[in-house]
Amino acid sequence: MKKIVVDAFGGDHAPLEIIEGALLAIQKHKDIEIILCGKEDKIKEILNGRNERIEIVDASQVITNDDHPTVAIRHKKDSSLVKAYDILKEREDVIGIVSAGSTGAVLAGAIMKIGRIRGISRPALAPILPTKKDSDVIIIDSGANIDCKPINLLHFALMGSAYYSIIYDVPKPRVALLNNGAEEEKGNELAKEAHALLKTAPINFIGNREGGDFMSGDVDVMVADGFAGNALLKGTEGAVKAVMSVLKKSIKSHFWSMIGAVFMKKTFKDIKNRVDIQSRHGGSPLLGCKKLIVKNHGACMRNNILSSIEQTVLLYEKKLNQKIEDAINELNKAGE
Amino acid sequence: MKKIVVDAFGGDHAPLEIIEGALLAIQKHKDIEIILCGKEDKIKEILNGRNERIEIVDASQVITNDDHPTVAIRHKKDSSLVKAYDILKEREDVIGIVSAGSTGAVLAGAIMKIGRIRGISRPALAPILPTKKDSDVIIIDSGANIDCKPINLLHFALMGSAYYSIIYDVPKPRVALLNNGAEEEKGNELAKEAHALLKTAPINFIGNREGGDFMSGDVDVMVADGFAGNALLKGTEGAVKAVMSVLKKSIKSHFWSMIGAVFMKKTFKDIKNRVDIQSRHGGSPLLGCKKLIVKNHGACMRNNILSSIEQTVLLYEKKLNQKIEDAINELNKAGE
Repeated sequence: MKKIVVDAFGGDHAPLEIIEGALLAIQKHKDIEIILCGKEDKIKEILNGRNERIEIVDASQVITNDDHPTVAIRHKKDSSLVKAYDILKEREDVIGIVSAGSTGAVLAGAIMKIGRIRGISRPALAPILPTKKDSDVIIIDSGANIDCKPINLLHFALMGSAYYSIIYDVPKPRVALLNNGAEEEKGNELAKEAHALLKTAPINFIGNREGGDFMSGDVDVMVADGFAGNALLKGTEGAVKAVMSVLKKSIKSHFWSMIGAVFMKKTFKDIKNRVDIQSRHGGSPLLGCKKLIVKNHGACMRNNILSSIEQTVLLYEKKLNQKIEDAINELNKAGE
Repeated sequence: MKKIVVDAFGGDHAPLEIIEGALLAIQKHKDIEIILCGKEDKIKEILNGRNERIEIVDASQVITNDDHPTVAIRHKKDSSLVKAYDILKEREDVIGIVSAGSTGAVLAGAIMKIGRIRGISRPALAPILPTKKDSDVIIIDSGANIDCKPINLLHFALMGSAYYSIIYDVPKPRVALLNNGAEEEKGNELAKEAHALLKTAPINFIGNREGGDFMSGDVDVMVADGFAGNALLKGTEGAVKAVMSVLKKSIKSHFWSMIGAVFMKKTFKDIKNRVDIQSRHGGSPLLGCKKLIVKNHGACMRNNILSSIEQTVLLYEKKLNQKIEDAINELNKAGE
């Protein structure tokens, strides 16, 4: 039995969508138990008797995006997120946490309550995006670490490679460094120093790549500091949305395009499926912590929560954290 | 009569497309003269007698992307780019240069041969992108300055605002700072310090914006260091290409989608027009130099060269450099 704790009151559509997502996971997988943290009466009302393999832990407070992350973790001791982290920390049989709450608070709680894997300088967020080929790509870090040192980027690369190899069953993912050109001498000070470290790391490092290569399908793991990584991730998501928006607007303004759009249903479905990575893979894991932490988009719905729970189980079964520890040990041995 | 010097041997499709682009400008605008720099015999062969208002300056060498930029500017004295810069520098009546050559060499030549506007710490590249609304957006800097200080970003904001207000005839463009969140306290060290400077600058500063707001239509001028700016620009362009590629592939694989696509011709044309900003606006100007410098994509065709020449004339007539000087003076006065 795998036990996962879920922050039932984090997210724009909490608690309804979070709880329904947990129920989907329970129905689909007979070897999963869920601990829901949040206001007990409200949770019970939504469950409406569907409480098989569900445990409720009452928490009267909610952490919002307006709360200062570390202050909230320290003082909102009876919040759904802090209670969930306490359970994750104290109960050995709980394998991971899923939350769609404030990113800052989820990060702060991870550091303050759970802690880093020995040797990892900074945990990092690694969301998945589609590419124009059949493969997907992850970016690490996408915004958890805004000011970075070269050693952080080296650790991001090790963690990203271990993570990608598990979720796609690829033994040697292609790891690239986000840069302003492919040539080795390119980059700001951080990128130049990180490049030198990545070259000797126990990963399949394919060199520098530009933002334009992100969705090309030629990169599996794009390594970046959280500031540039966030710009790339959000810019990419925004561009995809912008194209779809221009497409829709144009279809509505031309009669024949509206007719054409009816014939093109399958194509629009293809694109939706290709772009909607979230429901396929759940949220972003926060890699590098002692226990599994999966952060969902604030706007996520029940299917995303289901996927995140499934992802947590997969990462547990495939021993992600053990693989990260092994990579760090290999790195340290090589450096001795 | 406006004289513009064109590097006829810079770019993937040089010299043919560059020369044909110059000829388009000559035909369309009776008050333009072009000086073509490059191998004289080859230029004459392409011109084939069409030499009205065209001057040729012979240059036997070509600077390529494999050349080290500053070394090339220093030593390839008989290259089409260096000769063009020499003409721009020496002849007072030449208002600007257009080149599709190596970006590094164009930048190096700008600094070494032409120099900065007094008070501007760093020239910057400011390409234009479409948004999902009807307005366009520029990003400054998009890659000319990889390691930046806060004062550089302040100057980018002043220059970008002056440039945008000219090309779109908008008195107070909305200037935003690229950041990992909209809140004032967000950002890496550079962004935080830049934010404080931008708040007091004589521009319409609307605060921090994420990469996802870039194509939203709610920002006119996105200010960033060249590293993050390059990631955002290239990532955005790559994402648009990826969506179009997935769309095409899907259409080809579904019979009814192929039928639908025929009806949707107008919509595809709309999107192409919206995305193909380059032909509408020419290349990226390098803002902040004593004379007008417009850098085209290496892959540009004749229509892009025409647009870049037209853009150079517009920026000259609307006194871009005077406006940048005025903004710097206003800033310095406020600081006294």
